[in-house]
Order: sequence, then structure tokens, then C-alpha cells
Amino acid sequence: MADTARRPEHRYGNRPTMKDVAARAGVGLKTVSRVVNGEPGVTPDTERRVQEAIDSLGFRRNDSARVLRKGRTASVGLVLEDLADPFYGPLSRAVEEVARAHGALLINGSSAEDADREQELALALCARRVDGLIVIPAGSDHRYLEPEIRAGVATVFVDRPAGLIDADVVLSDSYGGARNGVAHLIAHGHRRIGFIGDRPRIHTATERLRGYRAAMEDAGLEVAEEWVSLGPTEPDRVARAVGAMLSGPNPVTALFAGNNRVTVTTVRVLASRETPVALVGFDDIELADLLGITVIAQDAAALGRTAAERLFRRLDGAEEPPTTVVLETKLIPRGSGETAPA
Amino acid sequence: MADTARRPEHRYGNRPTMKDVAARAGVGLKTVSRVVNGEPGVTPDTERRVQEAIDSLGFRRNDSARVLRKGRTASVGLVLEDLADPFYGPLSRAVEEVARAHGALLINGSSAEDADREQELALALCARRVDGLIVIPAGSDHRYLEPEIRAGVATVFVDRPAGLIDADVVLSDSYGGARNGVAHLIAHGHRRIGFIGDRPRIHTATERLRGYRAAMEDAGLEVAEEWVSLGPTEPDRVARAVGAMLSGPNPVTALFAGNNRVTVTTVRVLASRETPVALVGFDDIELADLLGITVIAQDAAALGRTAAERLFRRLDGAEEPPTTVVLETKLIPRGSGETAPA
Repeated sequence: MADTARRPEHRYGNRPTMKDVAARAGVGLKTVSRVVNGEPGVTPDTERRVQEAIDSLGFRRNDSARVLRKGRTASVGLVLEDLADPFYGPLSRAVEEVARAHGALLINGSSAEDADREQELALALCARRVDGLIVIPAGSDHRYLEPEIRAGVATVFVDRPAGLIDADVVLSDSYGGARNGVAHLIAHGHRRIGFIGDRPRIHTATERLRGYRAAMEDAGLEVAEEWVSLGPTEPDRVARAVGAMLSGPNPVTALFAGNNRVTVTTVRVLASRETPVALVGFDDIELADLLGITVIAQDAAALGRTAAERLFRRLDGAEEPPTTVVLETKLIPRGSGETAPA
Repeated sequence: MADTARRPEHRYGNRPTMKDVAARAGVGLKTVSRVVNGEPGVTPDTERRVQEAIDSLGFRRNDSARVLRKGRTASVGLVLEDLADPFYGPLSRAVEEVARAHGALLINGSSAEDADREQELALALCARRVDGLIVIPAGSDHRYLEPEIRAGVATVFVDRPAGLIDADVVLSDSYGGARNGVAHLIAHGHRRIGFIGDRPRIHTATERLRGYRAAMEDAGLEVAEEWVSLGPTEPDRVARAVGAMLSGPNPVTALFAGNNRVTVTTVRVLASRETPVALVGFDDIELADLLGITVIAQDAAALGRTAAERLFRRLDGAEEPPTTVVLETKLIPRGSGETAPA
């Protein structure tokens, strides 16, 4: 391990090279290159000697050099919002499995919901010559990717659409899902329903709000201004929003939570109250079955898989105009969304 | 987007080069290189013209070429078990934040708990010349990494120790945590306690089993053979193990669940039974507070942060022998572990 402590500038100085292998095996450089790259024209005996030299020196081909020569890196980049959000776990894993089936590595990172950081990360991945890029956008202007796309980086947007460029997109039906969920609450007798969602610049947040408004309008219900709250999904902000909607002269009897982070906090706040309040949340969450939480489930793994399959079809040469694929959501009734107004 | 449909072999052909920038700006190649690399010796007017040419052509420096010239990639690799397991989310995010503070990208992938896949992935990352590697090992023999470590790839193992090589390791105190958790059940009157854990080749599983046995022995309690079950954490297997321990002539009154996957299934099985069974689980899980699940919590983010900080200290030239850091766990009583035997 002492070697790892050397200063970075010198760290690569002692990697064995093809020249070292050639010297050890007593053959020419071209012969080593043939063996390393699996090319013909080497006798079995020579191949064995070269392989022994490779093993004893611990030589490894430098794939960075191959990238430059061949123009392929066999890697795809995934820019997501937050590695720590459980929604992105199955999505990332699904992308990785598709990439792996195509012999490609997955490189991923988080934008932390910051448009500048998304751009920085996406361009850093392009600068490392990933073959393709799957982006869960934080920003709303993706023209910065146009030179990359022109240069051949296949790009697919997932969970939210691309901004100001024409690209392949894979989404869940946020609008339809929220509309169904709110209609479900209305069908159980609720007339005063609150909506708590993520920040208004996030596409899924506004789409789900649009679904909420459509369901209310379908039922001829007015939406009071204080029944809608969009903002960061930090527990404090969500708890304040729930508290405000449940007090005052016109309290709600039911809530629609705009995503898994909102649902978790809302469930905690409602658990501490005596009067039952109905709840439907967008996104399924682990153990929601035991807590009886009714949700609109989206299939995070299917989003990742669909996006990755599209990406590799592009890389395999598919020539079709950019398309938007919208995946269905599913209402899972478990109790919290099926109670009548208190 | 039509460009992305071109076949891979040609995809990089139309990237603008420094030569294109030089031609557009009407300057020499060396001048463009100076501007791109922020070197002195260019007048403000010329710099502006070069910058305009860069912007209009969409030129981007090729960092793969820089890697080869400078021997640094500013990236670290993370090999973990499963991107979809919520335990690894905060760990990955913490590694990413430390890497980002050091100007490095995180490249990660899953071994799917397969030793061959771990090796394949770790070596693929080394072949791309990552500066350092953080490994959550699936296998038990890491001698395959010795040539990489000798060549200067800083390597830190996290969550489980390295096999057959001397390396930096960051662990949670699995043994002590499990011992505390089982002692807690004993203190609440339980004498027949079951242990359900992950496969026996996984270090954390055997360490937690060792903690269970130690707590039982401390209290002078015998462990019946049928009270211990190690194996895959798939719901079916865990549900069968719980069922077996709760039936038969010598049923347990309490269970210790060896990790978050086991806890989730155990909670589901216990929820469907009439007789209460006490439960303590290793790892905290989301919403465990609302379900009243007593856990031994480990700090996944602290594991990732500690490992990443050690990695960058190595990369910055720290010369110290490999060390093993063990992080404390914490008992969080919430009800399921504080009930007396039925």
C-alpha cells in the first residue's frame, strides 16, 4: 500500500508497459500488441510466453488510449437528481443492467437539483467521451448539449422532458396519475382536498398539479388558494404546509402528496393528529403496504430500462425522429385514500 | 437528433477540432491551445475572437487526451453491491460529495453480490485509469487488485474488509451492534431468540451472527440450531425462515433481523400474525419510526464519507500504513424490541 501514498504526479510512472512485456517475453512490441488485442499471427508457444510476462508484470491494457484510437468508450453517463433518493435506485440499477447487457459501463452522478451542476456533470461526461447520456434534467434549457448531440452523443431524457431541444424522452404519466388519485379521493366523498408538491420549476410537480386541478374541475369543485403548496420537499416546509391546510377556516379533509418525499413527511404529520385525514401519494414507498398508504405508483425500473433501451437503439444506428414515451401509473388502494371525510 | 442515429464508428468524425477553431478565428493552433488551456501570451482581442469561434463551433476540449498526457483522470470508482438497495444511496451520495469537493467525478456500478462481476467492474474502472477505487467487496480474494495498487490506484474497502491483501478498510461495528441488539431483547425477558441473516460468505452476516451468539452466551443462553438461518435475503426465503422459527416445539419469542432487507420481510410476516413477536433489525429503514421498529442503526453516509476522505488523503500523498476504521452503531428503541415474551 505504500505505493498508493506516492504523489499523484508520479503515480502512473511504474505501470508496466507493452515494452516491459516485450522485454520480459523476449519478443517484439508488435507481437505483444497482437496478443493483447487478440489478433492472429502469433504461435501458441509465443502467446503463452507473452501471457506469462503479462501475468507476472501485472500489465493491463490502457483503455483510455483505446478510446482515443477507436472513438468508443463503451460507457454511458446517467445524470440524476440525487443518488440518495430511493426513487433513483431502481432506475439506476435498470439502466446499469441494460448497459451491462451491451457491454457498457455506467457512469453516474447527481445534479442535486441544480441546473448548473447538471450542465457541469453532463459536459464532464461528454468530455470523457461517453457513448450516450441519460439525463434526469434539473434545468430547463438543454441547448448546451446540442454540440454534443451533433457530435454523436446519443441522449435520452427521463422523468422530465428536455428543455428547448428536440430529444428522446421517457416519462411517467404524472398528469393522468395525479388526476386519477384526486378523482379517487373525490369518489370517497372529499370536497376540500389539498395538493403539496415539489418546486414549481420541476416539470413533474406542475404536471401533477395540473392533474389535481383537472380532477377538481371535472367534479365541479373550486380550488381555494390555500389548498395548493409547491416548494422544496424538506420535512420542515412540508410539515408547515400540511399544518396550514388542516387549520384555518376552510381546512381540507384529504391531501394529495406530489412525490415520495412529500408523502413520507405527510404520513408522519398525520400520524400525530387525532382527526383522520385521507391521503393519496404519488410514488410508491417501501412499507407503504403496512402503513396502509394509498399511492399512485410509477415504475422507476421501467423508466430506466425504457430510456436505456432507446439509448442503445440509437447507438446501434436506429434512424427515427425523437419520440416521447409516456408510461402508465397505477393506483394502489391501501386504506389511507379510502376513508370518508371526518 | 438525426445525427445521433449515425453508426458508432463514425460518430466522432464531426466533432470540431482546435484546427477548426484556429481557422474560424484566423489565428494559429498554438494560440487556440493557449486560450483553451488558460495559458498567458494572448491579447484580450485575440482571446475574444478565439472564444467566439469556440462558442460558434461548439468546440470542447477532449479530456480523454488530457488523461493520457497528464496521468490524472480526476475520477474515482465505486463498486457497490446493488444500486437499488436503499442502504447504498446515502453511501454513494456521500462519496460523490467528497469526490466533488476534490474536483473528481464518481463512476459507480454494482457487483450484484457476485465476486466475478466485482472483479470485472473494478478492473474495468482501473483500465479507465480512475485515480482511486472504493470497493464494497462481494468476493473474498482481492489479490487481483495488487498490480493496480502497486501502479498507484488508491483503494479503500468499505462495509466489508478486503480479502488476502493489506488495505484501508472502513466498517460499521456489526459484531458490537448485533450483540447490543440481542442483549436488548434479553433484557426485555426473551430467552428464545432467532437470528435471520444474509449468506454466510458475507462478512457482515457472519459478524452479526457472532454478535448474536456472544450476547446469548453472555446471558448463559443456549442457541438451538433451528434459531439461526443464513441465506439470500429474497422475501420468500426470509418468510420461510420466520415461519419455521415461530412454529415447531421450541418457537422463538423474539427475532434479530440481520439487515434492512431481512427486516422489511420480517415486519410484513409478523404483521399478519396474531401473537406479538419482538423484533430488532440491523440497519435503520425509512418509516421504521411510524411502524415502531427498533433498530441498530449504522450511518451509511458516514461510511461513504470516511472511506472517500481516506481515499483522497492517500491521493494527496499521505504515507501511513493501511488502517481499519470501525464506526459505532446506535440502538434506536421504538417499540418492537421492548415487548415482553407473549
